[in-house]
Amino acid sequence: MFKKVCIIGAGLLGGSLAKRLKAQSPELAVNAWARSERAEKQLRESTVFDRVSRDIGQAVSDADLVVLCSPVDTFGDVLKAMLPSLSVGCTVTDVGSTKAMVCRTCETVLAGRAHFVGAHPMAGSEKSGIANAVPDLFDGQVCFITPTAQSDATAVKRVTAFWQSVGLRTFCVDPDEHDRIVAAISHLPHTLAVTLCNVLGGKPEAWLGFAGNGLRDTTRIAAGLPDLWQSILLSNREALLAGIEDFERHLKEIKSALREGDREKVVAYLSRGKSVRDSF
Amino acid sequence: MFKKVCIIGAGLLGGSLAKRLKAQSPELAVNAWARSERAEKQLRESTVFDRVSRDIGQAVSDADLVVLCSPVDTFGDVLKAMLPSLSVGCTVTDVGSTKAMVCRTCETVLAGRAHFVGAHPMAGSEKSGIANAVPDLFDGQVCFITPTAQSDATAVKRVTAFWQSVGLRTFCVDPDEHDRIVAAISHLPHTLAVTLCNVLGGKPEAWLGFAGNGLRDTTRIAAGLPDLWQSILLSNREALLAGIEDFERHLKEIKSALREGDREKVVAYLSRGKSVRDSF
Repeated sequence: MFKKVCIIGAGLLGGSLAKRLKAQSPELAVNAWARSERAEKQLRESTVFDRVSRDIGQAVSDADLVVLCSPVDTFGDVLKAMLPSLSVGCTVTDVGSTKAMVCRTCETVLAGRAHFVGAHPMAGSEKSGIANAVPDLFDGQVCFITPTAQSDATAVKRVTAFWQSVGLRTFCVDPDEHDRIVAAISHLPHTLAVTLCNVLGGKPEAWLGFAGNGLRDTTRIAAGLPDLWQSILLSNREALLAGIEDFERHLKEIKSALREGDREKVVAYLSRGKSVRDSF
Repeated sequence: MFKKVCIIGAGLLGGSLAKRLKAQSPELAVNAWARSERAEKQLRESTVFDRVSRDIGQAVSDADLVVLCSPVDTFGDVLKAMLPSLSVGCTVTDVGSTKAMVCRTCETVLAGRAHFVGAHPMAGSEKSGIANAVPDLFDGQVCFITPTAQSDATAVKRVTAFWQSVGLRTFCVDPDEHDRIVAAISHLPHTLAVTLCNVLGGKPEAWLGFAGNGLRDTTRIAAGLPDLWQSILLSNREALLAGIEDFERHLKEIKSALREGDREKVVAYLSRGKSVRDSF
């Protein structure tokens, strides 16, 4: 399929991808670009990569697939920096959590030089960094593929097959539709978990010691990396803001039922939520 | 300590308590009151109890400890029904998730007849019913004990020792303080999880198929029993409403940071939340 893959920003996702690729295709060259001396050292010590370079041109030279795994707001700068060294006709994909802005940016920068096909593997956790990378991170998880009117059909097929080859279940959706989906199922839940933690942060410290498993589960995702998540949330802020406003409208409903002491309304509200959760 | 315990409403918590008591003290008599024929059948089939009765007077006769495990809004009626048969000077405790209203109600009904000491073992899950009851449910979990100015000091000591004997870590707090604590760490999180599910219920059904582990964790508690939870939330509605309003204020903050595209404010908000979560 591809012979030389270059991973840009090998943290949890990029590192897990590299481990999986080397495990299943030892003959495949897997290189990495490291943005700092510290990152370079970590990536070398992981012994996963055939080559680690801090020179982005050197990192991507001869690669027939480049995978962007750095925060989504870095994609434009990173692509511009690698552009002169990029093989003509090579393929670029990514693991970014939002897609409308990403596809626009990447297609614009790469136009006439390389084929971009956006992807979003829904894998990962509140852990981060190559130290937590594992080859089976993607097994059975959902991966959105977001082609646009500009996409090269062959590149879309090859990128889809690539992500499937590491264990993902691919779903093809429009980038804007993707962003509305993840606003609801990922970015809004993340924002709510962080907000709940901020509320708890204003309470006496001893209270947190009483947290049970329910609260632990509910807030787990709030431990995600702030820098990574600000780039995700801001790049999808319109869909996210609409999601928050939707949430606020529902909160008003339960508030008024509670204020009125309306048992039936409270039960109906809880029952609707339970039936949605039970259908997961 | 106690010789004959009667459990009122043996579901997940009452059933787990019975299993634990019989496992560690086979000589202890553990009886149950069943509110319906169906419940009576289930409790008999569990083979945990020495005696199961639908007659509440018969169920509590000779008991020196009665444990209320039915929904908190039933306590008043249940106590009134058992009152004529209750041994003079016996002890009554409960597992209710709210305490201010519970302590007022129980102390009023039992005044001069039995000693009430409120308790709230923070155990349980989204599962329910005696079928899911396990003897180690309470191991290492927090249990609030909420004495009041009316409490009998000996009864408080005995009830505290009782809950400790089944594996709980007890903490003594004022009933009102208890309710503010659980509003923040349990009732608000529950309300938010249900609200998120209600938001998702308004989206195309296919979207739920894309739910990852993060969303599953965040919404798990929304699967709790609506009837049980309405009684919890309504009996603590003042503290819960204050918690929701606190949450809404924080949501406004992140909304304005997102709307302004203020990266620093978004990072600061996410970082504060992460540091709270990391301190759990």
